[in-house]
Amino acid sequence: MNNFIFQNPTKIIFGKETIEKIGDELKKNNIKKVLIHYGGGSIKKNGVYDKVVISLKENNIEFIEVSGVKPNPRLSKVIEGIEFAKKNNVDGILAIGGGSVIDSAKAIAGGFFYDDYIWNAFATKNRFKKALPLFVILTLSATGSEMNGNAVITNEKTNQKWTTSGLALYPKVSIIDPTVQFSLPKKQTINGAVDAISHAMEFYFDGTKNNEIQLQLAESIIRTIITTTEILLGNPEDYDARANLVWSATLALNGLLSTGTKGGDWSSHELEHSLSALFDVSHGEGLAIIFPAWLKYNYNEHIERFDRFALKIFNIDTGNPSIDAKLGIETLIEWYKKIGQPTTLKEIGITENNIDKLVENATQKEYIGRLKRLSKEDIINIYKLAL
Amino acid sequence: MNNFIFQNPTKIIFGKETIEKIGDELKKNNIKKVLIHYGGGSIKKNGVYDKVVISLKENNIEFIEVSGVKPNPRLSKVIEGIEFAKKNNVDGILAIGGGSVIDSAKAIAGGFFYDDYIWNAFATKNRFKKALPLFVILTLSATGSEMNGNAVITNEKTNQKWTTSGLALYPKVSIIDPTVQFSLPKKQTINGAVDAISHAMEFYFDGTKNNEIQLQLAESIIRTIITTTEILLGNPEDYDARANLVWSATLALNGLLSTGTKGGDWSSHELEHSLSALFDVSHGEGLAIIFPAWLKYNYNEHIERFDRFALKIFNIDTGNPSIDAKLGIETLIEWYKKIGQPTTLKEIGITENNIDKLVENATQKEYIGRLKRLSKEDIINIYKLAL
Repeated sequence: MNNFIFQNPTKIIFGKETIEKIGDELKKNNIKKVLIHYGGGSIKKNGVYDKVVISLKENNIEFIEVSGVKPNPRLSKVIEGIEFAKKNNVDGILAIGGGSVIDSAKAIAGGFFYDDYIWNAFATKNRFKKALPLFVILTLSATGSEMNGNAVITNEKTNQKWTTSGLALYPKVSIIDPTVQFSLPKKQTINGAVDAISHAMEFYFDGTKNNEIQLQLAESIIRTIITTTEILLGNPEDYDARANLVWSATLALNGLLSTGTKGGDWSSHELEHSLSALFDVSHGEGLAIIFPAWLKYNYNEHIERFDRFALKIFNIDTGNPSIDAKLGIETLIEWYKKIGQPTTLKEIGITENNIDKLVENATQKEYIGRLKRLSKEDIINIYKLAL
Repeated sequence: MNNFIFQNPTKIIFGKETIEKIGDELKKNNIKKVLIHYGGGSIKKNGVYDKVVISLKENNIEFIEVSGVKPNPRLSKVIEGIEFAKKNNVDGILAIGGGSVIDSAKAIAGGFFYDDYIWNAFATKNRFKKALPLFVILTLSATGSEMNGNAVITNEKTNQKWTTSGLALYPKVSIIDPTVQFSLPKKQTINGAVDAISHAMEFYFDGTKNNEIQLQLAESIIRTIITTTEILLGNPEDYDARANLVWSATLALNGLLSTGTKGGDWSSHELEHSLSALFDVSHGEGLAIIFPAWLKYNYNEHIERFDRFALKIFNIDTGNPSIDAKLGIETLIEWYKKIGQPTTLKEIGITENNIDKLVENATQKEYIGRLKRLSKEDIINIYKLAL
């Protein structure tokens, strides 16, 4: 096990009828005027927006709004948000949405105090040191952004989808009401599940040895996501399945699984980010395509771990570690197909002709991979395997 | 799954050669003068004390000391600590030890600002609202106190071993260097392991239904504690076994396993606290005796859960849930015997003649038990089963 620091100050308020508490939480944190940040307006259809507004008014909290955040959230929207927040002198941000909205809100919260050009917080080591207090009402479980300090933003001018992180970006309070996700399109539940499983796998397959407790925790999270996703495809309003999925997704990227590891491999995420940046693919679909290709390409780098994955997740045990490792990957792909995910680039219209562009985008990163540091040739091979 | 709030602000610094960071952490938190609190002086033999002093001096942090904390930490020592802390105007507390020292330090930290009579913070709902910032260097893993807001103190005048808790009592920073525990007597490692397993079991057996993710996390922690304890009995200096045990013990009572449950049953802890209060039994031994008796007495209250425990922890599956449940309990008792724990009251010199006194002490509590709320008769029966 490696040395680590774990610190996660976010307060989670979880369960039924919890959205109503948002005004009180803002008040306790001395927020007088808040910027509400959200996406395309589904929160106005499902009643979340109204509940928030009532709670804010009851607690005499002023609010202004910036909406229209899109999946793969854009830098231009972040800049719009920062300018509006400054002009209106808000003292807090309230994100109502999934990972895209939360990440966009984090960039606004950090950008509010940032003197440098905003993209430098993503591109360089000049990360956000200070941020407006951030509050979250989660409406889609996937990225874990409700309980971590990470934000992924797409610079649409340069086609870069890059990540920043820092202690200042952890939400003060995140409210997670699983019932809000009853009305999600199935596709979004599935994308979220694949994203959360992928987070757990990034830590699981980063080459760390002798981290038994973290492996068992990761396996617990992956197994629970698989079983609860299957239940929800039959009945999206099964509360307990939804609650278990939602909390598992949060735990998959709140720092717990990272403890004692090398920090995660993250190759699959980086290669997927290039896919999303260039072709606006949804992250969950991109991961269902890229991660299996990465697994196939790298299983020989840590065969015992891949063997263990097959056993602990899918009960595969032929006695031959190499066969088990491959069967484990194949079974994961079959499961992705079963829940309706694409598992090849071709299915989403990307062909061999696009690979040069993907590789060019991906190789801008300082480095990719901890289990194996990927060379340009490795990156080409993995994208080709994903075709 | 039940609604819950999760909030745990403690910063954990984990791994080899981390004790040296304490001065820097105090400085970052603007601490100028700290009260060092510890036990019988083993920290002077194993080098921990010297490392701390060097780090404090390097960072120009003044310190004073109150030592001599005993297992089942006493209220009189807490009062001594509060008076000394006030007289010397410290602005922080540094606990160097295991659960007893940390709990005593928490009571001092809270008592520093407490206007009421100190025992009222344990006896009534007038809990500590404010506390001096607390820092911890953990030397014995067991209670999880390094990452929670709980403190258990014994009032030696009234023979009450009672608990308080609150957000103010979470340590700011806890440093966990597993190598410090290499030199522990085996008995202390074993007691710590039993305590940590018992914490996980309190949540596991509190009657909550449909909390799949928390059950899997609890099972992961219990299994890891069992396997690593066995390794350490052979080789106390196996770093990875120690690191996995130590981190599992912290996770067993840092709030993670509590999420979505009824909050844990805690009958076994309460009944054990009476044992410790009256006979100064070590908590880990007391739990190895009391918890199995509670399990035997209550398995019919939630047979599916006891059946699952047998399967997931000990691979027991005869096909008959009732038989499995009983075999699971017997196997746990056998494991306690194997690692050298007493499993009956007789073994520690307590006989039927002492039961009235135990029952009298235990029934002072407002109530005991969530899986089943225990009547006086239940309490008598459980102590008798433990004979």
